[in-house]
Amino acid sequence: MGLLVVGSIGLDDIQTPFDKIENALGGSTTYISLAASYFTAPVSIVGVVGDDFSKNHIQMLEDHHIDIEGLQIIEGGKTFRYGCKYNYDLNNRESLFTHLNVFEKFNPIIPEKNKKDKFVLLGNIAPQLQMNVLDQLNEPRFIVCDTMNFWIDGAFDDLMKVLKRVHVLIINDSEARLLSKEPNLIKAAKIITDMGPKYLIIKKGEHGALLFGDNTIFSAPAYPMENIYDPTGAGDAFAGGFTGYLHKNLELSFDNMKRAVIYGSIMASFCVEKFSTKGLENLSWLEIKNRFIEFQNLSSFD
Amino acid sequence: MGLLVVGSIGLDDIQTPFDKIENALGGSTTYISLAASYFTAPVSIVGVVGDDFSKNHIQMLEDHHIDIEGLQIIEGGKTFRYGCKYNYDLNNRESLFTHLNVFEKFNPIIPEKNKKDKFVLLGNIAPQLQMNVLDQLNEPRFIVCDTMNFWIDGAFDDLMKVLKRVHVLIINDSEARLLSKEPNLIKAAKIITDMGPKYLIIKKGEHGALLFGDNTIFSAPAYPMENIYDPTGAGDAFAGGFTGYLHKNLELSFDNMKRAVIYGSIMASFCVEKFSTKGLENLSWLEIKNRFIEFQNLSSFD
Repeated sequence: MGLLVVGSIGLDDIQTPFDKIENALGGSTTYISLAASYFTAPVSIVGVVGDDFSKNHIQMLEDHHIDIEGLQIIEGGKTFRYGCKYNYDLNNRESLFTHLNVFEKFNPIIPEKNKKDKFVLLGNIAPQLQMNVLDQLNEPRFIVCDTMNFWIDGAFDDLMKVLKRVHVLIINDSEARLLSKEPNLIKAAKIITDMGPKYLIIKKGEHGALLFGDNTIFSAPAYPMENIYDPTGAGDAFAGGFTGYLHKNLELSFDNMKRAVIYGSIMASFCVEKFSTKGLENLSWLEIKNRFIEFQNLSSFD
Repeated sequence: MGLLVVGSIGLDDIQTPFDKIENALGGSTTYISLAASYFTAPVSIVGVVGDDFSKNHIQMLEDHHIDIEGLQIIEGGKTFRYGCKYNYDLNNRESLFTHLNVFEKFNPIIPEKNKKDKFVLLGNIAPQLQMNVLDQLNEPRFIVCDTMNFWIDGAFDDLMKVLKRVHVLIINDSEARLLSKEPNLIKAAKIITDMGPKYLIIKKGEHGALLFGDNTIFSAPAYPMENIYDPTGAGDAFAGGFTGYLHKNLELSFDNMKRAVIYGSIMASFCVEKFSTKGLENLSWLEIKNRFIEFQNLSSFD
């Protein structure tokens, strides 16, 4: 039983105050599957690219033992492209362009062998597509879902249908406030878990993350970062680390979810240390484990 | 050897979305000393009020074994008065009026018996007054200092002189950014500890607090609060709980400072549950200890 990841795959142009890159590997599926690949296998991806998508990128994913049977390569099509520019403190980004290209007509087709996958991670795509994926699956045991303000505002009813079926929703604090229409995050979490998800993770950037569920709250610290080079993909790396760790040992207790939130935070911290997916491409297990110990030292007291 | 607290004492008019009170006990010294009184004794205060200051307030402080020998009561004078109004989510307040009254000419006079106090907490008053207090003392061992954007902007040079002499500075995140001219809090902390304080605490409201020092960082969670009735005095209650706990066992290791940050956070959480100082007036040690365990459950993982 594998971990199935469905979302976007694209090529990004990114400007930060430090540097500028073009044509870099991006997309939620990419970051998620790379982060998850350090914890478990197989990680299978479903997505779409054009025939302009570099074979090097595909090779890099395969080097991480990511199963790409579900990757559709459209002959004569162009890959999804996105450009953005971050402001001086990297807290805000301005979209420069979005060319959906082949992603516009993305119709996720789950390979036969993956229909029995018990762990599914729905990346940040239209709720209707997320529902389409779930409809193809054979009783998944554990569904993790990401979304964003664009869908909360523009596809609220579809999103509500998805939320009734997922086990964990991962969003950031402003999205939690938008979704619940409640400024207090503790109250917001109750409203959102009443919409369906048994567990809710609220990411708060430099302030860490909160896990809600089982009438309990876990507050994870943020890794203290002096130098963030590229925030792109941090949320996806979090989701990949979180779900990958849970898939590794298949234990869904709250205590294990707490650890998974820390591993998610760790993968996000590695992600933002380099441009594009570079921070997730060459990690050792020792580096990951050492950062776990750093997180413990950061927040433990007796 | 006692704990000496110097700061403001006043009467507040407070409006929140939930209620409105007038003539309520306020001021940094008041919140600090009440919070500290649950951990240690004697807590001695130095401050000034007019003869309009209610004997009931003085009695309440004495009931908490707070030593008021250093409280100057000016015959014919009026007590410092402050009025403010909080916005709907309690994150911002608008000052309605500030009548300094007798506080305008406040000249802190440290009673002879307190000049040898080894623990000093300088509440948020003019840096020049904070320096004046330090000059009257006989080699204090441990000086904790609060300040605010008003002094960072308006009395920077005096504040720099104070910071060279204090051991712990307690400020909030926006004040840390303003003081250091650096948006990244981890970098900001290095800049500020280079100004003098061995330890720095950055309070982040609903996101908890960070303790910096000994080349180490501790990230304390915030207590999950659904209902905040009155944020007034939360920062002072934090400082009082932090310093009171450290004074209790006189151990200044980083591990003990971490515990002290949690006790500070606990006193702040009790403070905001009721109007004015009411949340700090009738606590049991069991309530405080139980909340410590709640903080442990909130942030521990293995």
